[in-house]
Amino acid sequence: MELKGVSLIGFREGEKATGFAAINPATGQPLETQFYAASAADVDRAAQLAKKAVPAYGSLPGKDRAAFLRHIASALEANASDIVKRANLETALPEGRLQGEMGRTCNQLRLFAQVVEEGSWVGARLDSPDPGRKPAPKPAIRSMLKPLGPAAVFGASNFPLAFSVAGGDTASALAAGNPVVVKAHPAHPGTSELVGQLIRESVRALNLPEGVFSLLFDAGIEIGIRLVQHPAIKAVAFTGSQAGGTALMKLAAARPEPIPCYAEMSSVNPVFVLPGVLNKRGGTFAAGLQASFTLGAGQFCTKPGVVLLPKEQGTDPFLKELSNHVESTGSQTLLTPRIANQYASAVESRSSAGHAKVLAKGAKADESEPGANAQVALLVADSKEFQSNEELAKEIFGPTTLVVPYTNREDLLAIAENLEGHLTATIHAEDGELEQYAELIDILTRKVGRLLLNSYPTGVEVCHAMVHGGPFPATSDSRSTSVGTRAIFRFARPVCYQDFPDAALPDALKSSNPLGIWRLVDGEWTRAVSG
Amino acid sequence: MELKGVSLIGFREGEKATGFAAINPATGQPLETQFYAASAADVDRAAQLAKKAVPAYGSLPGKDRAAFLRHIASALEANASDIVKRANLETALPEGRLQGEMGRTCNQLRLFAQVVEEGSWVGARLDSPDPGRKPAPKPAIRSMLKPLGPAAVFGASNFPLAFSVAGGDTASALAAGNPVVVKAHPAHPGTSELVGQLIRESVRALNLPEGVFSLLFDAGIEIGIRLVQHPAIKAVAFTGSQAGGTALMKLAAARPEPIPCYAEMSSVNPVFVLPGVLNKRGGTFAAGLQASFTLGAGQFCTKPGVVLLPKEQGTDPFLKELSNHVESTGSQTLLTPRIANQYASAVESRSSAGHAKVLAKGAKADESEPGANAQVALLVADSKEFQSNEELAKEIFGPTTLVVPYTNREDLLAIAENLEGHLTATIHAEDGELEQYAELIDILTRKVGRLLLNSYPTGVEVCHAMVHGGPFPATSDSRSTSVGTRAIFRFARPVCYQDFPDAALPDALKSSNPLGIWRLVDGEWTRAVSG
Repeated sequence: MELKGVSLIGFREGEKATGFAAINPATGQPLETQFYAASAADVDRAAQLAKKAVPAYGSLPGKDRAAFLRHIASALEANASDIVKRANLETALPEGRLQGEMGRTCNQLRLFAQVVEEGSWVGARLDSPDPGRKPAPKPAIRSMLKPLGPAAVFGASNFPLAFSVAGGDTASALAAGNPVVVKAHPAHPGTSELVGQLIRESVRALNLPEGVFSLLFDAGIEIGIRLVQHPAIKAVAFTGSQAGGTALMKLAAARPEPIPCYAEMSSVNPVFVLPGVLNKRGGTFAAGLQASFTLGAGQFCTKPGVVLLPKEQGTDPFLKELSNHVESTGSQTLLTPRIANQYASAVESRSSAGHAKVLAKGAKADESEPGANAQVALLVADSKEFQSNEELAKEIFGPTTLVVPYTNREDLLAIAENLEGHLTATIHAEDGELEQYAELIDILTRKVGRLLLNSYPTGVEVCHAMVHGGPFPATSDSRSTSVGTRAIFRFARPVCYQDFPDAALPDALKSSNPLGIWRLVDGEWTRAVSG
Repeated sequence: MELKGVSLIGFREGEKATGFAAINPATGQPLETQFYAASAADVDRAAQLAKKAVPAYGSLPGKDRAAFLRHIASALEANASDIVKRANLETALPEGRLQGEMGRTCNQLRLFAQVVEEGSWVGARLDSPDPGRKPAPKPAIRSMLKPLGPAAVFGASNFPLAFSVAGGDTASALAAGNPVVVKAHPAHPGTSELVGQLIRESVRALNLPEGVFSLLFDAGIEIGIRLVQHPAIKAVAFTGSQAGGTALMKLAAARPEPIPCYAEMSSVNPVFVLPGVLNKRGGTFAAGLQASFTLGAGQFCTKPGVVLLPKEQGTDPFLKELSNHVESTGSQTLLTPRIANQYASAVESRSSAGHAKVLAKGAKADESEPGANAQVALLVADSKEFQSNEELAKEIFGPTTLVVPYTNREDLLAIAENLEGHLTATIHAEDGELEQYAELIDILTRKVGRLLLNSYPTGVEVCHAMVHGGPFPATSDSRSTSVGTRAIFRFARPVCYQDFPDAALPDALKSSNPLGIWRLVDGEWTRAVSG
């Protein structure tokens, strides 16, 4: 596959405004292809094409949308090696990890294909009329979810495939029947273009309107801002920093027509270790924790960033073992030089300010070694300091975690109660301990989108029940998830038809139930035909 | 029942800050009881009590929440005559209409009781684990909807019962497991207090925490602002003007922790009359339209405010008939003197500016007659004027409608395409016409929450399939409805449990499915037990 370096505006090419290059984080050097930021006119063209595609694409039967999603998945697989190679150059993520991410991206597209082909996700509801009712006749009311309109999707730096151009946001927005305009992440423009070209080819192959998909480049923020402000855009999806996410939330809310903004931002993913764990299995927990917080060089939204340890039971042997793991870990390459700098200074400022102590560090990169290198770091802070110092509860993006010994049950519950919103919380407990900590579960249920037991939060399963979300500031909207099939609901809204004849109703609402979907008919879920 | 005139802060009384009185719109005179605005400290107390009630009330089984809602309904019925009498004095709405609204309010509470008692609304999803999966084992993932947290509900002036203290917002928020703090509408404080007292008695009767319900008075906007800004409040529901709704949206978005704001604002509810209708049944249509736009003195959110008529077919006989209806209609009493003034000047300014012409007016109130009186008005504007003048497409709250003759099919489609968001759109069509106007249906589907055929938009059925919502500016959030059982989803968010044993899971997610609810198990809807 060949890179052209320009935005994809439907089937057309974007303008060649300001140029920029991708940086190889392993070398610190620019990669060969020149990329060009989209122009303001490109944004307008992409958004207008998306709007134009709404009637045709939005009314496409679920099975045709499924075929489109599957076509994209197959195209990605057929070109996986080119894409993975480029993604490796642009992100320094190992090829093995990127192959896994490619598999996950394709599975995700196929899972959404399955959901829209089956069709029940539209939540069809039918209430029968009663013409004889007094004092007024009861009308026939039927409703279902319909597409929200063109979505602006922002690629994420840390998942160049699964949360980028053909990632979960795009897959769920397309599945729900919405055209998508992607703003590529400037850290992996080549990966973005390769994937974008394949989506465009799928649009062509299925004879869909060109506006169903566009891809915009920009090394800065201007194009993203214009996109979110464009009147044709009806929803925004973003995965990234809290600063970026809250800026988009404000833009979306300040529009003449405010629109939903789904920003998945930052999370510390606290781990609560109950008293019995360390003595029983401190060794395996140390190994598992180390693997989880250094996975993807600690650049996962679900990285465990704070670990609450039972002080009374003695934490020294465990911390010694965890420190050994950390010290034997080599230097890691982060996604961009900027992220590497931010990481180093965040770790440094916490320890130099005396809020946390460095317990152990991994190997340092050779001075002569170029690139976005980072040293794994294990920090410790006491429970009082943690509860009084908000900074310590903020995410550090990169391979570090903070252990906080707590004094007793009360202390642990207070820490949980003071948490702000996170994507996940994890409890490690031995047999019989969980019953005594029902209150902890209850508190955490109000603080996060996903609770884990005796496991690690990294590695988010793509399935029907997954919730990758959580109260602000973990996300902009706790009512949603950006992973799993519930994610489709972000891009839909209910529409109701009163006293319409079958012929004028969408198939999902016809009496004969031609799609054979589950529907709520007069309050009862059924797949039957309805009167 | 006796009125005390002070806010209900859980089981306590609010402070006696600034006093105010309810005005009888029929006489323009203040009613006897003195009411007192809540203090800032009252707001804080109510919100803190609500927060404190979250763990106990949020984890209450559905059947207990159902019992609570039914208790409220029974208490309202037992005191219906006192409440209706007071509401009539405060709103000038006829007793018959208020009795109907009381019935609807009680039915609504019972419908939500049924939904939460049955329990499937939580959308439980279970994905089975696969410990042997390569490269990584698949965890057990289960998720369901959980309460969002304390809701601030604003009473509406035009439905003193069904959209006020025990109305749809309160019913759906309580049903979902959330404490509620209501800001009473100052136009009917007595009605609000009577209903509030009964909810408080139900809280006591069911031994619920007092913070489950509070009621705040204020004649101005300060208490409402403080309430929306309070950190313990997690959602806002409002029915009222666009100015009020957008102000609340901004407040909710500007909080340190932004929260969802459900504002149901304004809508013109356009009616599209296809060419065959007037000749075939112009007479019945004129009578039906007249009844609909003057129902409740034209103070319904779904009042048909614009009627598109087929010019080519000749509209004169129809307009003559409609004018006759209007001219024989007596003067109407509006909800408040302020609303009556706004109504008169809106009608006046449209005609005096020459944008619309007055076709007919109803009887004028006798000069000597006191109160918030309004003259029914039928306006007409031509299609070009309507499309070029945004003002004409704005809602006038009160008994008036605007007829707009359109020239042909193209003109009609252009008018539809240029609409902003509305709650409803209605099509009147004769046999065979609808097929030729599939495009009109398609356009309107993207503009409104509810489409009606050969019917009138006033009178919103409370049922499972109802959608009383629509794109901005009809509401703040087109993904929601404020009427019907889908309204419960506004106050819930999904929470996921990974690898939790049955004993630590909520009943809705236990393998044995003890609640017998519908669940999505490995992608299939079933009420069965799950492995």
